[in-house]
Amino acid sequence: MKSNRRQFLTGAAKGTALAGLTLGGIRSASAQTSPYYALTKTPARRMGAGYFDPGRGDVQPEFWGDEYPEGRKTPLGDSLGIITPNREMFVANHQAPTPNIDARKHTLLIHGLVDRPMVFTMDDLKRLPSVSRVHYLACAGNGGAIGLAMRRRYTTVQQMYGWAGCAEWTGVPLSTVLNMVGVQKEAKWIVPESVDGKKWSMSSPLAKAYDDAMLIYGQNGELLSPGNGYPLRLLVPGFEGTRNIKWLRKLKLTDQPAMSKHEINVYSNLKNDGKARWYQFAMEVGGIITFPSAAQKLPGPASYEISGVAWSGGGSIHRVEVSVDGGRTWKDAQLQAPVLRKAFTRFRLPWRWDGQEAVLMSRSTDDTGDIQPSLAEFSKIWRVTPDAWLTSVGTVQHFNAVQPWRIDRDGNVTNGMWHPSNNT
Amino acid sequence: MKSNRRQFLTGAAKGTALAGLTLGGIRSASAQTSPYYALTKTPARRMGAGYFDPGRGDVQPEFWGDEYPEGRKTPLGDSLGIITPNREMFVANHQAPTPNIDARKHTLLIHGLVDRPMVFTMDDLKRLPSVSRVHYLACAGNGGAIGLAMRRRYTTVQQMYGWAGCAEWTGVPLSTVLNMVGVQKEAKWIVPESVDGKKWSMSSPLAKAYDDAMLIYGQNGELLSPGNGYPLRLLVPGFEGTRNIKWLRKLKLTDQPAMSKHEINVYSNLKNDGKARWYQFAMEVGGIITFPSAAQKLPGPASYEISGVAWSGGGSIHRVEVSVDGGRTWKDAQLQAPVLRKAFTRFRLPWRWDGQEAVLMSRSTDDTGDIQPSLAEFSKIWRVTPDAWLTSVGTVQHFNAVQPWRIDRDGNVTNGMWHPSNNT
Repeated sequence: MKSNRRQFLTGAAKGTALAGLTLGGIRSASAQTSPYYALTKTPARRMGAGYFDPGRGDVQPEFWGDEYPEGRKTPLGDSLGIITPNREMFVANHQAPTPNIDARKHTLLIHGLVDRPMVFTMDDLKRLPSVSRVHYLACAGNGGAIGLAMRRRYTTVQQMYGWAGCAEWTGVPLSTVLNMVGVQKEAKWIVPESVDGKKWSMSSPLAKAYDDAMLIYGQNGELLSPGNGYPLRLLVPGFEGTRNIKWLRKLKLTDQPAMSKHEINVYSNLKNDGKARWYQFAMEVGGIITFPSAAQKLPGPASYEISGVAWSGGGSIHRVEVSVDGGRTWKDAQLQAPVLRKAFTRFRLPWRWDGQEAVLMSRSTDDTGDIQPSLAEFSKIWRVTPDAWLTSVGTVQHFNAVQPWRIDRDGNVTNGMWHPSNNT
Repeated sequence: MKSNRRQFLTGAAKGTALAGLTLGGIRSASAQTSPYYALTKTPARRMGAGYFDPGRGDVQPEFWGDEYPEGRKTPLGDSLGIITPNREMFVANHQAPTPNIDARKHTLLIHGLVDRPMVFTMDDLKRLPSVSRVHYLACAGNGGAIGLAMRRRYTTVQQMYGWAGCAEWTGVPLSTVLNMVGVQKEAKWIVPESVDGKKWSMSSPLAKAYDDAMLIYGQNGELLSPGNGYPLRLLVPGFEGTRNIKWLRKLKLTDQPAMSKHEINVYSNLKNDGKARWYQFAMEVGGIITFPSAAQKLPGPASYEISGVAWSGGGSIHRVEVSVDGGRTWKDAQLQAPVLRKAFTRFRLPWRWDGQEAVLMSRSTDDTGDIQPSLAEFSKIWRVTPDAWLTSVGTVQHFNAVQPWRIDRDGNVTNGMWHPSNNT
């Protein structure tokens, strides 16, 4: 394999096109000396402005939380279909503001265990063969603080699960540029580095690069939004959001993971026995009902459509069951086609509400056979207590238990997870 | 079939759920007396504001043309993938401004040859079983004025072909509400009516309702944008854009088409023999290269990716061929999966430009075997002369000839359709 890469590079250096692709115009690392990014501490312009006038009867969903630095959440309670508009895509920034990057000067350095370190400008990357794929992104902590120390503060599905969204991403397969630099056989990991203030770094296995990792510059038909990594982001589909490094400036190939603070601490999973699991990459199968969901209100007994989104970082959604009686009985929901891998799948089930108390929940199964656990099942392994929020490992990571919504007789919908009647 | 419908309605009237769906809460027409729309002549708020600072190196694509009343065009030259962001989706308004509709008061009346005329509020419609589908929309006149009287004024792919875009639409299958009102057997046509100043009306065959027509309220995960029909639009996938009536307030079932001025005049096709064809519904197979395209510039000889979008109102794209030598030789481009019916399909082909003059073109084939014609082939049947623009039938409608882009030695890209060397 290595000899093939060398052959490719030799051919390319001679100006021979291979599959239409040559290195013409793309510089090696040594040719690049000037500072290649301009980081400011100035927060990027606020993006939340909508176009609906309240007088029209619909108000553009508000982003929740401080816009920066922590970010904003996707208004899932108002979501339709599977696409999250760029304006509404969640931003989780980890205390650093969105940098104001000059794309004309931005570059990506690929170095480490490679035959030939290279620097790519944005123009270089955009001239390479590209792909577009619909994938979801979710923070590892999404949902993990909902019923814990934060359970009183978090009240809507946006607040509880809004660190997730789904878009059509466009960019270059990571394998394409790795084939250009020539990966050495000792390399086992990719360690990306961001331009942001914290120099965020989260390792991924090299195999992911040859599976489906991408260097993305496009989001839903236009350029990446600044909060989502403009001008360049690493996309590792299905992996926890934090490994999808925004404002990507360097990618190092190594024989060991970075062991950065965040990958061995904040994003580890605390077990009941006090030990923590490191390095969970793919998000597990999950899903939530977005309508009706907490803080919404049903105007009265009538026909409704229960609707939500399901996902799996490990593959595609195979089945979503919905219960309207707190988990005693389940019905298969309809899945919106096409069902795409590592993407939101919209599910729907018509339902007639009779005006009585009801508890709604959805349970997803992916194509590997994994089933979304109940809270009790999840809690058998992982520490799910209010103090988990307060420990050094932060909130409960990779939380994917079934989420119940309670419908009261007055039509009000509330979080039913810690309700005494929840035996799941 | 009618007896089944009656049975359904009888069951529903008794409160029996059929497939989870009842009529509870949805009013018959007689119960609705108040004025149900508020039309103002005030243009809606401008939507073009982007979030890219020029200082970052990328400028948000500008909409072309007057924002209102004629509308704006999709900046296809900067498009990535197949999704058109709502902010960039074309708007063609036919002299009427976008109405400022109060969705709380907006209703849809379904009447005519039906057993039971009904009025639906937006809340009624949103409680019905919904679907989400990715479809493209294109004005029948898209591309039709490019090289004719307007060929000097139109210079970019946005200006020439920007009356097209593609989105994920969410709404109710039209067949669902037709089953509720009970369609009489004499009915053959659906005649929608808009709230806008011109009371726009364009007939579609009833069969379309039972195929894939939808009443849509969602666009790319959020509510319809005002310029695209907020709060309610008729979607007849693959049909010429003008039949996808925006700001929908009425739908009449009739035994004859409306024979409105626009469907028998403006949107008819003028043949070389002076006769015009009425009632073309589905847009034919087409496509254009978006990069490189007119008014863009290649910085120098290097590897590039030729990329564009293909479409067919009659089905899905089966094949796109690309020529870099003015149509002498063709290569199959790669089609981005999933290839969806009546949607944009992104195609790509790596290409090394040697710095010499080149003429690029793409030719699409759909799954019915239809192939995009050359200009000469198109012109054998349809009148394609500058005076077509000036006649009462307006521009050339349903123009789908192969579009050549000329690359000059300095890298400048221009419209090659009327260049002397174009023998296609």
